[in-house]
Amino acid sequence: MSEFPVSQIQFRPGVIDLGMGNPDFDLLPVEILQKSAQEYFAASDPQPLQYGNEAGDGYFRRSLAEFLSRRYAADVDPELLFVTAGASSALDLLCTLFTRPGDEIFVEEPTYFLALRIFEDHGLNVVPVPMDAEGLKIDAVEEKLEDHAPKFIYTIPIFQNPSGITLSPGRREKLVNLARQYNFLVVADEAYQFLSYAPANLPSFADYTANYKQVVSVNSFSKILAPGLRLGWIQAHPDVIERLTTCGLLESGGGMNPYTSALVRGLLNSGALDQNISILHEAYSERLQAMDTALKQHLPGAEYSKPDGGFFFWVRLPGVNAAVFRKKLVEFKVDFRQGALFSSRAGMDEHLRLGFCFYNADDIEEGIKRLRDCLAQ
Amino acid sequence: MSEFPVSQIQFRPGVIDLGMGNPDFDLLPVEILQKSAQEYFAASDPQPLQYGNEAGDGYFRRSLAEFLSRRYAADVDPELLFVTAGASSALDLLCTLFTRPGDEIFVEEPTYFLALRIFEDHGLNVVPVPMDAEGLKIDAVEEKLEDHAPKFIYTIPIFQNPSGITLSPGRREKLVNLARQYNFLVVADEAYQFLSYAPANLPSFADYTANYKQVVSVNSFSKILAPGLRLGWIQAHPDVIERLTTCGLLESGGGMNPYTSALVRGLLNSGALDQNISILHEAYSERLQAMDTALKQHLPGAEYSKPDGGFFFWVRLPGVNAAVFRKKLVEFKVDFRQGALFSSRAGMDEHLRLGFCFYNADDIEEGIKRLRDCLAQ
Repeated sequence: MSEFPVSQIQFRPGVIDLGMGNPDFDLLPVEILQKSAQEYFAASDPQPLQYGNEAGDGYFRRSLAEFLSRRYAADVDPELLFVTAGASSALDLLCTLFTRPGDEIFVEEPTYFLALRIFEDHGLNVVPVPMDAEGLKIDAVEEKLEDHAPKFIYTIPIFQNPSGITLSPGRREKLVNLARQYNFLVVADEAYQFLSYAPANLPSFADYTANYKQVVSVNSFSKILAPGLRLGWIQAHPDVIERLTTCGLLESGGGMNPYTSALVRGLLNSGALDQNISILHEAYSERLQAMDTALKQHLPGAEYSKPDGGFFFWVRLPGVNAAVFRKKLVEFKVDFRQGALFSSRAGMDEHLRLGFCFYNADDIEEGIKRLRDCLAQ
Repeated sequence: MSEFPVSQIQFRPGVIDLGMGNPDFDLLPVEILQKSAQEYFAASDPQPLQYGNEAGDGYFRRSLAEFLSRRYAADVDPELLFVTAGASSALDLLCTLFTRPGDEIFVEEPTYFLALRIFEDHGLNVVPVPMDAEGLKIDAVEEKLEDHAPKFIYTIPIFQNPSGITLSPGRREKLVNLARQYNFLVVADEAYQFLSYAPANLPSFADYTANYKQVVSVNSFSKILAPGLRLGWIQAHPDVIERLTTCGLLESGGGMNPYTSALVRGLLNSGALDQNISILHEAYSERLQAMDTALKQHLPGAEYSKPDGGFFFWVRLPGVNAAVFRKKLVEFKVDFRQGALFSSRAGMDEHLRLGFCFYNADDIEEGIKRLRDCLAQ
């Protein structure tokens, strides 16, 4: 067994890997899921063990719509919801159904590096669009539309991975207008939508889905509950939902995760998911603060905007090549993700993505100190 | 709620739908899963709630390898196993990674109609290959290889859906040799492998996977346990497993169903899955017998080979156009799947697929009587 890998996370003993984008094991809510499982089995309902409705269990979609209506403070129609096996499965399915190899898509520069891998598997040609402090630059989108005809634009419009930036409301409006005018999809990966650690009235691309078939909001329970359940959802116009539910994968296998939906339904109805999100807010804001303090204290040359939510700090070390720096980290037992990973054109050389959710405040400070020590050498 | 669909199975009151390919609700093992969930949560292990290993949890793969070694009476190496979210997700992923739109693939004629839908979503050109009583005609494969270069052949080599036919050992050997010679994959959908109701020493394409990277065995817990868990596996050569585990979907989302794997692992280890399979064997062989008896008694003109396993009778009614016949069934409150669905070239007009697993023996006889009454009219 020694060489046979048992978990996705390959722990290196004693290493603080600030590159990690996973939730902390200690914050995975085993107990509330246990309670929900007990209640599910007590009812002895075989339905969630059968092939499920293609769009997802109807009761689950209703419960999810109520949860979302509460969080968005706006009515969400369950007919706009499609249950996925997480955001990655959603992106994969959207690529299969709405693109063909050789098609162009737009992505933010920088963007989530593993989404780039999914697009690569589908043979898509990725056109990067620059961002600034307000997110995706819409004038750059417009300019690129003169020479390109993307099937979709992939955006992480809130607490972006890796940059932490949120797209401004005005730009959202403009992006949707461009999507309608040029007929491409806005695929908005909103996995961090409910992880704002500052009071805020945050917009969501979900707001547009009832009216515009160009907008697809992708979301997930991975960051607000537990990745191992492989459960997420798409909110989109009924025309998009129809295309998803009538595809071969769904008609053959049925809805994506009927049994784990049944567990999560209990948490949606009881308010336990809302409580879990509050617990995460408290833990993660403390960690965010700890990272900010440690960076200011130990790496005063680091350039970054302190994020208000999500999982990541996006730090620039002027004059430091992050890839070269990373190679020297082994003996210092610390790690991060180098910026170039998140670039579809091998840019972002001086950037580091640092995650603040996987480790507690003490480990975060220790990790930043180790980065300082390595840099000092 | 009245018009909002809650389950994939749209029940029409009083109708006996012999087209159904689902397990019976009464045979979904709620209790053994309840016990397994209790044990999982009692151990309070957060690992299966985290992002999982791309190939699937290592402990789960070891337990699965032991189960398979027992059932195949041949050693299975866990390194050859990759955990999927069911056979449909496996086919979808194989299409994404090993084909491009416009590529050719071979399928059996007839074949599983919803697999055809998955291939269609991937833009594949389907070339049908005829079958006879021994399964896929290998001389026909050879002949078609003169004009075609398929990326893979999709076969259901055991208790085929819909025909119930099992591919003979000699032909398996020949097919693997052709795959090696012409460099295409044999994608063997073996979901009915463990549902033989007659004592038999059944071959599996899994046997070839350690040595040949052209053979991919796709299997699932949907038919031997519960479809709603969305759990299955691929057994393949390490080179194929490597391609699967390093794709964007898996690297981004992690292994396909860590939490449901943890539940099923308990059943693999305790022998409860073996017991469940025995229960299914008993129930399904009785139902198979009931359908055979009812067909002989009430539809003596029906032509078919009595299957030894799987879910289906593949019945020909000479001189009857099944699609036309089906339209008259509404008032008789019975249904089936017409043969043409399973044909990639709109053949199989006089065939009916009748499932014997969803209903009990009495309902099966009643269903066949209703077919007789409709036919008599």
